[in-house]
Amino acid sequence: MRTLIVYAHPEPTSFAGAMRDAAVSTLEAAGHEVVVSDLYAEGFNPVAGRHDFTTVADPERFHYQTEQAHASAERGYTPELAREQRRVERAAVIILVFPLWWGGVPAILKGWFERVLAYGFAYEDSMRYDTGFFRGRSGLMGIVTGGTRERFSERGTYGAIEQVLWPTQHCMVEYLGLNTMEPFVAYAAPRVSMQQRREYLHQWRQRVLECLDGANTPGGEPPALKTARPATTWSSEE
Amino acid sequence: MRTLIVYAHPEPTSFAGAMRDAAVSTLEAAGHEVVVSDLYAEGFNPVAGRHDFTTVADPERFHYQTEQAHASAERGYTPELAREQRRVERAAVIILVFPLWWGGVPAILKGWFERVLAYGFAYEDSMRYDTGFFRGRSGLMGIVTGGTRERFSERGTYGAIEQVLWPTQHCMVEYLGLNTMEPFVAYAAPRVSMQQRREYLHQWRQRVLECLDGANTPGGEPPALKTARPATTWSSEE
Repeated sequence: MRTLIVYAHPEPTSFAGAMRDAAVSTLEAAGHEVVVSDLYAEGFNPVAGRHDFTTVADPERFHYQTEQAHASAERGYTPELAREQRRVERAAVIILVFPLWWGGVPAILKGWFERVLAYGFAYEDSMRYDTGFFRGRSGLMGIVTGGTRERFSERGTYGAIEQVLWPTQHCMVEYLGLNTMEPFVAYAAPRVSMQQRREYLHQWRQRVLECLDGANTPGGEPPALKTARPATTWSSEE
Repeated sequence: MRTLIVYAHPEPTSFAGAMRDAAVSTLEAAGHEVVVSDLYAEGFNPVAGRHDFTTVADPERFHYQTEQAHASAERGYTPELAREQRRVERAAVIILVFPLWWGGVPAILKGWFERVLAYGFAYEDSMRYDTGFFRGRSGLMGIVTGGTRERFSERGTYGAIEQVLWPTQHCMVEYLGLNTMEPFVAYAAPRVSMQQRREYLHQWRQRVLECLDGANTPGGEPPALKTARPATTWSSEE
């Protein structure tokens, strides 16, 4: 079974880096194939634009979803995006590992969603959540915070972690139709004891293994993504 | 009184572009000075990294907030970031105009927060929310969605708009200590009637004017930002 880890931290020796490494070794020890999209190391450009495409749907006015729908039908993505889309397509499990910055994913990972998980490739108007393209695949987030668990509680400074992560979990990961698990959060990882960090990594490895159960892939093959076709009925999301 | 509009849409003729223009003309007609950071047009790079700085705090291990604290103390930001920080510093009112993508701000705007509103410049560990650097200034978001108002309701597909926008409003805008208003949301702007769009723009202009009241700036000068100083007690937010 193949897993794609999308990893977004600029420093390899960060705790997020340790979580990436722990996920890779755990999955490989269990006999799985792992591919890592290391966004910083690969110099991923998170800015959406005409440079996403080799095709043009409307040369006068740039409407992003129109261009994405067109490129999905015409195989019009640039090599960088086409490579990421192939990685996504082949993965039965998708794991995101990142630090929580300003209450959300780093810009480089936000842009990965915007550009790679494009209209016509990863979703369409009536194809999301329960009818999403990624049903039968599994998704998990591994998150590092600077703030303590208490700060992410109902009466804490930032509000409950479920509240802070709502758009990330519900409007990004669940949107795709993935079988999702509760996000794993390593609270205040830079400030806690070495023993607590080891404990976090132990729990994280368990969670990664549990995540495999969410992928219904007899034979190890991920379910095929719905074949992209020219969009005729989609409506825009500006 | 000076207003900074941070605008993040790749297409000038988009509805977000119309909201930017409406805000500019409304403010100028009221005798205010307006500066627009047009992130796409200016080619803003949203990726955090060593390229943010002319200074280096730790050449071995890249810890973003350590480098930001150091650069804030040593005036070590690259010209692009120093220019944005000057714009922020001089503004009594900060208005963000953007389309809602994947439940949050576009990557290019997320990266503007990460890089420009740096540790030591825009916040420190004990300086946020009620004690934030930006007290006495005013903040407002103007948002365009593809989804209808119903989809952003309690029983809608995405959840209540307050829930979706929580990290954006609470963990980004309010975090700074700005006097904030309820975000203005132009629901389904690309799909509604021309009359409804005109109505949106009318309501938006009103909101922009109301926003000025939140800035306590006798004489029109924004309150000085706390002077950056070498950070000795900060702790990390990985």
